[in-house]
Amino acid sequence: MKAEEALRRLYEERPLIHHLTNYVTVNLVANTTLSVGALPVMAHALEEVVEMVGLASALVVNIGTLDPPFIEAALIAGNRANDQGIPVVLDPVGAGATSFRTETAERLLSELSIAAVCGNAGEIATLAGLAAEVRGVESLEGDPREAVTKAARAVGVTVAATGETDYVSDGQRTLAISNGHPCMGRVVGSGCASTAVVGCFTAVGGAEAETVAHALAYFGRAGEVAAKGAGGGGTFEPQLLDALARDPKGLEDTLRIKEVPG
Amino acid sequence: MKAEEALRRLYEERPLIHHLTNYVTVNLVANTTLSVGALPVMAHALEEVVEMVGLASALVVNIGTLDPPFIEAALIAGNRANDQGIPVVLDPVGAGATSFRTETAERLLSELSIAAVCGNAGEIATLAGLAAEVRGVESLEGDPREAVTKAARAVGVTVAATGETDYVSDGQRTLAISNGHPCMGRVVGSGCASTAVVGCFTAVGGAEAETVAHALAYFGRAGEVAAKGAGGGGTFEPQLLDALARDPKGLEDTLRIKEVPG
Amino acid sequence: MKAEEALRRLYEERPLIHHLTNYVTVNLVANTTLSVGALPVMAHALEEVVEMVGLASALVVNIGTLDPPFIEAALIAGNRANDQGIPVVLDPVGAGATSFRTETAERLLSELSIAAVCGNAGEIATLAGLAAEVRGVESLEGDPREAVTKAARAVGVTVAATGETDYVSDGQRTLAISNGHPCMGRVVGSGCASTAVVGCFTAVGGAEAETVAHALAYFGRAGEVAAKGAGGGGTFEPQLLDALARDPKGLEDTLRIKEVPG
Repeated sequence: MKAEEALRRLYEERPLIHHLTNYVTVNLVANTTLSVGALPVMAHALEEVVEMVGLASALVVNIGTLDPPFIEAALIAGNRANDQGIPVVLDPVGAGATSFRTETAERLLSELSIAAVCGNAGEIATLAGLAAEVRGVESLEGDPREAVTKAARAVGVTVAATGETDYVSDGQRTLAISNGHPCMGRVVGSGCASTAVVGCFTAVGGAEAETVAHALAYFGRAGEVAAKGAGGGGTFEPQLLDALARDPKGLEDTLRIKEVPG
Repeated sequence: MKAEEALRRLYEERPLIHHLTNYVTVNLVANTTLSVGALPVMAHALEEVVEMVGLASALVVNIGTLDPPFIEAALIAGNRANDQGIPVVLDPVGAGATSFRTETAERLLSELSIAAVCGNAGEIATLAGLAAEVRGVESLEGDPREAVTKAARAVGVTVAATGETDYVSDGQRTLAISNGHPCMGRVVGSGCASTAVVGCFTAVGGAEAETVAHALAYFGRAGEVAAKGAGGGGTFEPQLLDALARDPKGLEDTLRIKEVPG
Repeated sequence: MKAEEALRRLYEERPLIHHLTNYVTVNLVANTTLSVGALPVMAHALEEVVEMVGLASALVVNIGTLDPPFIEAALIAGNRANDQGIPVVLDPVGAGATSFRTETAERLLSELSIAAVCGNAGEIATLAGLAAEVRGVESLEGDPREAVTKAARAVGVTVAATGETDYVSDGQRTLAISNGHPCMGRVVGSGCASTAVVGCFTAVGGAEAETVAHALAYFGRAGEVAAKGAGGGGTFEPQLLDALARDPKGLEDTLRIKEVPG
């Protein structure tokens, strides 16, 4: 599904997006979700997580500040999401930095039916079994195009790696997205926010490579708009939220997505 | 107590406001509290919550990301607040969305002496036993005027429902507040922030309907000021904090509060 | 180490700074770290905290929303940091407000080898055994110059007290820093953010009094720059992050640090 249609449907349907996410960027993730027309909710307690997922149209699991109770909630929520047939999007934050993160990302991929995985190049390379350098939650190295294609084949789902150019692959087709702006690297959580937009788009459009690519292109385009007049990452962030909420008319001409060899 | 006097006293006395709140909007809640002149503190550990409440002039309980340890802390903190005679303000975030939230709101109302309840129309309708649609933490339907009056009579305290028009009732009188701006719905946590302002006002002025109405009118008025020049929810939020901290002189003429049939 | 060199090395080396911090200001702390060129990571799970600290160049412990699991993680992370010889910086948020906070700060100082302590005047006075009034997490009283000198002698490490004038002492020399702006007191977490900058500087420059003083002077100078055009604490905060990320050329002339009697 293309961005214009996804955004139109988000504003019409106002789907609930359930986030199990980290406490560092949770506010940005929630505001990003609201900015593209969906309704965010964060609920982790075992007493309600199944019931809340029951109201949701997509589940986004971001392991940025994981611990055992978080993993338990993610598995329970993910199983419920699978049962009701809504997409589950995984952001494997820090996979490759510690074995706990790598193993948790692999466990979620193995025990749940994940619809799409979005991470940075190092995280995705890690899941593809390639060499990578992940320092904390930042990727310092790795070829994202090779990583998404290999990871998509390895895990059998749509995989996106964000960076200067974003890549999305379903194992067959690989798409390159060249929207974006360097300011996005100066805000903590721009990766989490882009995964949130992917989660919103999958809620109305499913998790095919085209839909995920349009979500990332739309996010990158908002970054280009927001960077005008921004003095740095600090003033860029509120302008990014404004830009994400703009009228999407005429949007398609500004999105730069092309198919590339995998 | 009217807004000008409440703000004057907050700036003079700098009361400590203890928040047991959610991790999504906690930063906005803290900055809102500081902006109106009070001092925010967040402390949840059983090892200190009683001692910290002992320093506070009001307690605000917001169940936005509740779990059993949160509820335990809220009950202990609330009992201490009751013992020392400071107001306890409850924001029943998501009541009506899951039974865990509805039951927790009811339990807090039953086990504690709550001074005021502030929520959206759907949450308040739920507490009043009326039909409501609450999607996650957003209210999609419900008549807020009927809800506040019924809820105030049902729980026997001042109740506020925020929305396009805010309503406050003590069961006898019902006040309608028409300050505000659509931008407030484009920021996650504007409801939490308005409850924080209510908490601050009750710390110096008690929880009568007039005081709660002035808190919400002041918050709505700040939203009107902040919306000038805002490009969306993102740039609106920092301007809202600025507006909350303005000199309140000449404020009363800008607040639109009137009594309406309950 | 002076600020220009510290910033140059941060941008070149991009060290990982591990934060065990509070959930109120965690996003500001992360963005502050990124703004000065370092990479922030927050990871608290016992399953990974040792491995993550192993990748880090400094550990910052901020007890703003402490509880027993937090303390356990801080001790384990701190021991690992000590073993590998990276600096541990402590922000004793709220020491003096509750006995749990005072005792936890003292315990961390006793069980770990802390490189530097940064707090407000009341918190530092508490650690020095002086009278102080700490309301929640705000310092209302206390002589910061006397406090830093006494505290530095008592605990045997570099100690900083932030306020209108910041003071840093190693027990021998005491430095006064007069950079800064009143807007900094209108943002929740400006103290946490300044400690984050200290943590970053210690990662490349160690924890001598001069380095800590330069970190605080740089932070204060960024506040002066950010205040231009800010309408209050709300719009000041994003501009502060922008200012922290500026090109540091010509910076030294703007830093106001002088030695004072202890």
